[in-house]
Amino acid sequence: MQIPNYKDIDLAHKRIMPFINRTPVLKSRNINQTTGANLYFKCENFQRVGAFKYRGATNAIQKLTDDNARNGVVTHSSGNHAQALALAASVRGIPAYIVMPENSPKSKIEAVKSYSGKITFCEPTLEARETNAQIIIDRTAATMIHPYDNADIIAGQGTAAKELIWEIGNLDIVVAPVGGGGLLSGTAISTKSITPETIVYAAEPEMANDAQLSFRSKTLIPSNYPNTIADGLRTSLSELTLSIILQYVDDILTAKEESIIKAMYMIWQRMKIIVEPSAAVPLAVITENPNLFEGKSVGIILSGGNIDLDKLPF
Amino acid sequence: MQIPNYKDIDLAHKRIMPFINRTPVLKSRNINQTTGANLYFKCENFQRVGAFKYRGATNAIQKLTDDNARNGVVTHSSGNHAQALALAASVRGIPAYIVMPENSPKSKIEAVKSYSGKITFCEPTLEARETNAQIIIDRTAATMIHPYDNADIIAGQGTAAKELIWEIGNLDIVVAPVGGGGLLSGTAISTKSITPETIVYAAEPEMANDAQLSFRSKTLIPSNYPNTIADGLRTSLSELTLSIILQYVDDILTAKEESIIKAMYMIWQRMKIIVEPSAAVPLAVITENPNLFEGKSVGIILSGGNIDLDKLPF
Repeated sequence: MQIPNYKDIDLAHKRIMPFINRTPVLKSRNINQTTGANLYFKCENFQRVGAFKYRGATNAIQKLTDDNARNGVVTHSSGNHAQALALAASVRGIPAYIVMPENSPKSKIEAVKSYSGKITFCEPTLEARETNAQIIIDRTAATMIHPYDNADIIAGQGTAAKELIWEIGNLDIVVAPVGGGGLLSGTAISTKSITPETIVYAAEPEMANDAQLSFRSKTLIPSNYPNTIADGLRTSLSELTLSIILQYVDDILTAKEESIIKAMYMIWQRMKIIVEPSAAVPLAVITENPNLFEGKSVGIILSGGNIDLDKLPF
Repeated sequence: MQIPNYKDIDLAHKRIMPFINRTPVLKSRNINQTTGANLYFKCENFQRVGAFKYRGATNAIQKLTDDNARNGVVTHSSGNHAQALALAASVRGIPAYIVMPENSPKSKIEAVKSYSGKITFCEPTLEARETNAQIIIDRTAATMIHPYDNADIIAGQGTAAKELIWEIGNLDIVVAPVGGGGLLSGTAISTKSITPETIVYAAEPEMANDAQLSFRSKTLIPSNYPNTIADGLRTSLSELTLSIILQYVDDILTAKEESIIKAMYMIWQRMKIIVEPSAAVPLAVITENPNLFEGKSVGIILSGGNIDLDKLPF
């Protein structure tokens, strides 16, 4: 698969502009005082479906030819990508087939249904997911849209950092969380293309440091779906995202679980916005590594805000 | 005391502009679908100190002559007004003496301290508060700044609705919560001055319906500090705010406690922003009275976002 470049991100941006929210960039005097850095939060928790995933899903779906689009799209996911794909498909008026593990949280099932996604339940194993997705493809000729191992998805995710940098200007550092690496890949390509001197860091839970290990060993080391609270970051890189990250990212930093919870609490309490644990990992990394960030202007991709309000860690 | 007019609000706005946050106006497709109305949320939860109170406090403090300012300001409050006054005083470089009941929540005490407020603790009775405030005034010649029975405070609070209407244009209805009536008074004066045909409703917890009773009987009926979850709305109107409300407000509508909690949950979940229970009362009123709001464009003052994240009602 070809690595997308900044031109792809620019085209993706034009393609998705009519459909996405232009999300705000927020600042917090309080958090700046606490961290000693000058932080700019790109609020993808305010994106449609509550996460940046809507950018990539919309790009992949709007780019389909009419002939391909007619047959619909398919993915296996229980997270924000499933909701994003369902809504983006519904906006284009085509079916979205979502394969979900039968033990998915009820709130996520309801969300996919509310966006008119056609759900197939399966056993909670990767094999069952892939088998069920293949059965749907054989039956419907729907197009598989992987949550991150897909150049169109990556190009779409890269539009968030593009908006951030065009709005704020030159930043010393940009930090994005890393799970499968789609957001990080798009963020890094955008950042290094617009302002090559900006440092790009990835933020990862220490409990799920497979991306850091892969980055440092330059070989793909899959995660074992670790039970980090940052549930959006449990997946592994793909060969595609690893190759982009090796080319464009300066380093991958990790944060402890308690720092992630503290950072999430800080964002909720000081900024009055709701972010999911995965979105708090960049701030957690900053609080754990003050020497890298003090006095710097730092852009942070707040990846999403989908969290079960009945089950908070504080 | 003289009733402030729109000119006072306009002057207040010029006075406080360098100090306040210009808060955003947010919309939610989801909540519009649920309510059938077209809602515009003026996000004073993003105001400094997390509440609209910073507008009034800044106006009152910035308006003091240098001679008066030097002696500082005093209030008795355990809520957002105390924090707002402390910060606004600190910005002007003058002392703020805050009389707080000794049983105030620790989080509120810490917040006032963090804004350099000088706290005097007292017994948790109105008499003790007033006595202690008077002792401070006698000793320091500080200026008493009442949280709402004060024309400068009211003029400052009115700037939120002014910004909302100038940004969005003609609205069919504007809704603000009512406790002591400072925000409501300022909102109503702004709204009826800029767009006289706009209906102004107040939103009040049914458990704390003293403003509704006062409005309908045209006499001040004090509250008995009812234990509504909307803790910012437990206070009573003053003669000043009642007279403004009788002149400018179309009606006062109430909401049940469970509707307030549901509305707060809806705002958190769908809009990804944190509002305190008092701020959710307008949406609660809208969900209880769909016939009044369906098909209408409605401005809502989201009054604040200060809530103890460890003690949520859901």
